[in-house]
Amino acid sequence: MRASQFFISTLKEAPADAEVVSHKLMLRAGLIKRVSAGIYTYMPMGLRVIRKVEQIIREEMNRAGAIELLMPVIQPAELWQETGRWDKMGPELMRVKDRHDRDFIVQPTSEEVITDVARSEIKSYRQLPLNFYHIQTKFRDERRPRFGVMRGREFTMKDAYSFHANQADLAREYQNMYDAYTRIFTRLGLNFRAVAADNGAIGGSGSHEFHVIAETGEDVLAYCPQSSYGANLEQAEAHSLLATRAAPAQPLAKTATPGQSKCEAVAAYLQLPLTQTVKSIVLAVDEADETGKITPRIWLLLLRGDHELNEVKVGKVPGLAGFRFATEVEIMAHFGCIPGYLGPLQTQQPVQLVVDRTVANMSDFVCGANAADYHYTGVNWGRDLPEPEIIADLRNVTAGEPSPDGAGTIALCRGIEVGHVFQLGTRYSVAMKATFLDEQGKPQPLLMGCYGIGVTRLLGAAIEQNHDERGMIWPTAMAPFTVALCPVGYDRNEMVKTATDQLYTALQAAGLEVLLDDRGERPGAMFADMELLGIPHRITLGERGLKEGLVEYVQRAHIQQEPCKLGLDQVLPALLAALAPIQPVSH
Amino acid sequence: MRASQFFISTLKEAPADAEVVSHKLMLRAGLIKRVSAGIYTYMPMGLRVIRKVEQIIREEMNRAGAIELLMPVIQPAELWQETGRWDKMGPELMRVKDRHDRDFIVQPTSEEVITDVARSEIKSYRQLPLNFYHIQTKFRDERRPRFGVMRGREFTMKDAYSFHANQADLAREYQNMYDAYTRIFTRLGLNFRAVAADNGAIGGSGSHEFHVIAETGEDVLAYCPQSSYGANLEQAEAHSLLATRAAPAQPLAKTATPGQSKCEAVAAYLQLPLTQTVKSIVLAVDEADETGKITPRIWLLLLRGDHELNEVKVGKVPGLAGFRFATEVEIMAHFGCIPGYLGPLQTQQPVQLVVDRTVANMSDFVCGANAADYHYTGVNWGRDLPEPEIIADLRNVTAGEPSPDGAGTIALCRGIEVGHVFQLGTRYSVAMKATFLDEQGKPQPLLMGCYGIGVTRLLGAAIEQNHDERGMIWPTAMAPFTVALCPVGYDRNEMVKTATDQLYTALQAAGLEVLLDDRGERPGAMFADMELLGIPHRITLGERGLKEGLVEYVQRAHIQQEPCKLGLDQVLPALLAALAPIQPVSH
Repeated sequence: MRASQFFISTLKEAPADAEVVSHKLMLRAGLIKRVSAGIYTYMPMGLRVIRKVEQIIREEMNRAGAIELLMPVIQPAELWQETGRWDKMGPELMRVKDRHDRDFIVQPTSEEVITDVARSEIKSYRQLPLNFYHIQTKFRDERRPRFGVMRGREFTMKDAYSFHANQADLAREYQNMYDAYTRIFTRLGLNFRAVAADNGAIGGSGSHEFHVIAETGEDVLAYCPQSSYGANLEQAEAHSLLATRAAPAQPLAKTATPGQSKCEAVAAYLQLPLTQTVKSIVLAVDEADETGKITPRIWLLLLRGDHELNEVKVGKVPGLAGFRFATEVEIMAHFGCIPGYLGPLQTQQPVQLVVDRTVANMSDFVCGANAADYHYTGVNWGRDLPEPEIIADLRNVTAGEPSPDGAGTIALCRGIEVGHVFQLGTRYSVAMKATFLDEQGKPQPLLMGCYGIGVTRLLGAAIEQNHDERGMIWPTAMAPFTVALCPVGYDRNEMVKTATDQLYTALQAAGLEVLLDDRGERPGAMFADMELLGIPHRITLGERGLKEGLVEYVQRAHIQQEPCKLGLDQVLPALLAALAPIQPVSH
Repeated sequence: MRASQFFISTLKEAPADAEVVSHKLMLRAGLIKRVSAGIYTYMPMGLRVIRKVEQIIREEMNRAGAIELLMPVIQPAELWQETGRWDKMGPELMRVKDRHDRDFIVQPTSEEVITDVARSEIKSYRQLPLNFYHIQTKFRDERRPRFGVMRGREFTMKDAYSFHANQADLAREYQNMYDAYTRIFTRLGLNFRAVAADNGAIGGSGSHEFHVIAETGEDVLAYCPQSSYGANLEQAEAHSLLATRAAPAQPLAKTATPGQSKCEAVAAYLQLPLTQTVKSIVLAVDEADETGKITPRIWLLLLRGDHELNEVKVGKVPGLAGFRFATEVEIMAHFGCIPGYLGPLQTQQPVQLVVDRTVANMSDFVCGANAADYHYTGVNWGRDLPEPEIIADLRNVTAGEPSPDGAGTIALCRGIEVGHVFQLGTRYSVAMKATFLDEQGKPQPLLMGCYGIGVTRLLGAAIEQNHDERGMIWPTAMAPFTVALCPVGYDRNEMVKTATDQLYTALQAAGLEVLLDDRGERPGAMFADMELLGIPHRITLGERGLKEGLVEYVQRAHIQQEPCKLGLDQVLPALLAALAPIQPVSH
């Protein structure tokens, strides 16, 4: 493609409201243009990247045996009422009425429509398994759209839905999709990690998230570099860091800790390790009695001083679903003390105690004394307190602790979720009466899996992972063009023009996607644009070099290095050699 | 593709509510599945056809120099308010509010968004011309969606928008797009015709429609088989069929025509040719005076008895915009006579007369006498009536009359509109202040063209044109698969299975898109499905033939003919020979 026949529109500065680097760079490079909050036009350069991503997804989905179809953007409310999502989903579900005042939604996903297809099309186990997917525009009315395409409102998603006669077959297809996703993100050239995920609201059993690793990611991932273990921090199981509980060695003592309300401060003041302290977290669950009267039940959670509360895990403790943090009034009423000095001993009113696994094995520990400016030291289970009744995993895992699979130690990194595979089970098929006849001729609900990839989000994630101060550094498979040809003096120097045109023709004939910068820009502006755009390979042609038959070649990823000089006929072989390793492996 | 790994779902009978053959066949063949009125899921077989159409459109748009981008489905109301379309468009514009109660629309087209892109991106005449297109989901909330994908509510459209510094360049690009559309519909293998079109509501000058020719088409097209002349009947100019007016030869006579109120009846009763009669059509235009009081002005239109009124042309007569047919009360008040015997002589109150071009040259004609059961015969302009003051083209052209370009005679056919090219001019750029700096550095409004193709509608139109009682007959370029392999006994006969697998591999290796029917259906069901699906070429493999090394080959378009017998190694050459003529011509 000649730049003069394409549309390149770059900016020196990014608009001030762009918060993250990918958003800034996509605006600066002219990949997207804002239409409304979280709604973008994908400009020609951006659309080329989308098409590359879509093509790789399509190839691998087809290879995995999934069948492409296309479900509509506007979907009737009736289907969403059948599954209850019409009522359950909040304002992020965009609702619209047609001219006859009938309710519709702008689809965020398509479980309902595909289940409607399945219930009319699938009669018998003989038709199973089936896996349908589409790549389609989605809408999610985010309260605060931001981060450009990473949390937009209108976005493109690939969503697949599989149907099975039994759990074993669902598990098989789940692994098949997991493998396809692994191939997709590998082919895209991204550093990624699949982690076990919390199912969240969507329900079902078994789910993994695929994350692009990036320092700016919103999610924290726990993984084991020595094994395949990986989980979203929300989900990663934390075992007790103390295998057994040591016998008490200290007497219980009420110790003055004036003004020391945080565990770190208490430990420093008492010259004890932080791991000897226990923090108290007070929660409330509002419980309604038969008359509808709501009474808050107060819970006290104990965590080791150096540990962080994991709210997802807390919500799974029986009785704690829907918890909230207690108010100061509630705390005063139950503990007779201000926050900062709370503990399990001598509470003013009874509270429900939940103890983290590690705390349950601690001895001689320090905790608040339910009196301002005082802590107890030398606290011991069974002696100063009853043995804990409820022991649960309440904390985030930490870097360096043993991996739950016993194969090494935990490391943490940040990631951007770009894919998700779920075993949905019968959540939708039961609600919508989507059944098939089994081998005995008995109707059974279809077992379902669902598998999503955020196509447009991948652009942002890839840039968060691959950029420098000059701009984007596209992995070759995602790059809008593979090679930039930058002739110096194309519009005025016959030798440069001739050599450039010949090389352009030769590279195109070899199947490379070449962007010939024939705009007549000065070298500095030309290089800056190609670096901002992140074109992986750049060939510079100038009169001086060409007199010796030489051009300059530099890779975007190694832009700091001195360009290497190549003879004109070495360019194609050099590029092909550089591109060879990333060619997709045939499976 | 093996049928067992694809998804084929055919029905014996079409749902009763499908009105037209394409809708019936698309449902029966499982190309689409209804989600809501005018909203469909494109099933795998249907999506394959869409992808073929999109690919050809994309190739030809790119070849023509247009640049692909992607504008959003959900667009902010502000842009639509700037152009006035927010107010002007009726309920067919789907409106939606986001969670913050801000107004949006579900796009039916994208003039506003692309003009917004242009006004921020285009600064100088040096950047022009530019032509952007996208292929995107559209929504038009039709009052009565029907005819399947031909008048659906959600549909896929390719829309392009070009920007120019002057009218000459707009005209050049308009022709460029006209040529690209010609290549697109030619490559799709459709019998089509481009005709001059009425601009309708969208405004601007110069527009052509591209129609797929089909007996079931909603539009009537006038064209000249001897030349390139073509126009939508609404638009086709009708000249006077009488070059000059003959001198009066008959006296004016009030003649009894008891009960004969139609021209045909009057002509028969009076034993005169129908072409000697004139029909009277009474219209009203409601005109408001300064106080806002509305008074209807009554118009009398005269057409030759065998001619049809063209309402689009009527609306263009100065003063007749917004006309309606007069009520019987209004007619009685102005003519003192019931409809059926009305005429221009001796009206009770003055009416505004408009005379069709042909009528203006008639002499000795017959018209109503404004008295029940009476007509005047021998009526002549200048003698019995003043010379007509307003002469206009009021009628539809008729088959067999001279073509307006003088190159032959008019023929009529029916068509389905699938494409439209417009010269928009500055309608949107002026409203949205989209300007560029001209060579003198002066801001000028951008000149615009717009160019649409109904992608999903093309499926319906192609089927309306290409079908028989067995099903669809896809042109090769649109067919979901090119070749159907139908083995008889694939699941139980080793010789059949081996030969089929080898042929399947060989045809695929040659780049043909093959559907191997390995479902184990009986031959009759297999043939019926492949005929319904309209796969252009079918190879049948059976044990008896294979013993002699022979298979049967038949083309869907000639399904009535006896299949021809081919040696196994003749199949590929025969198919390639049959496909050769439709390979796209390189431009």
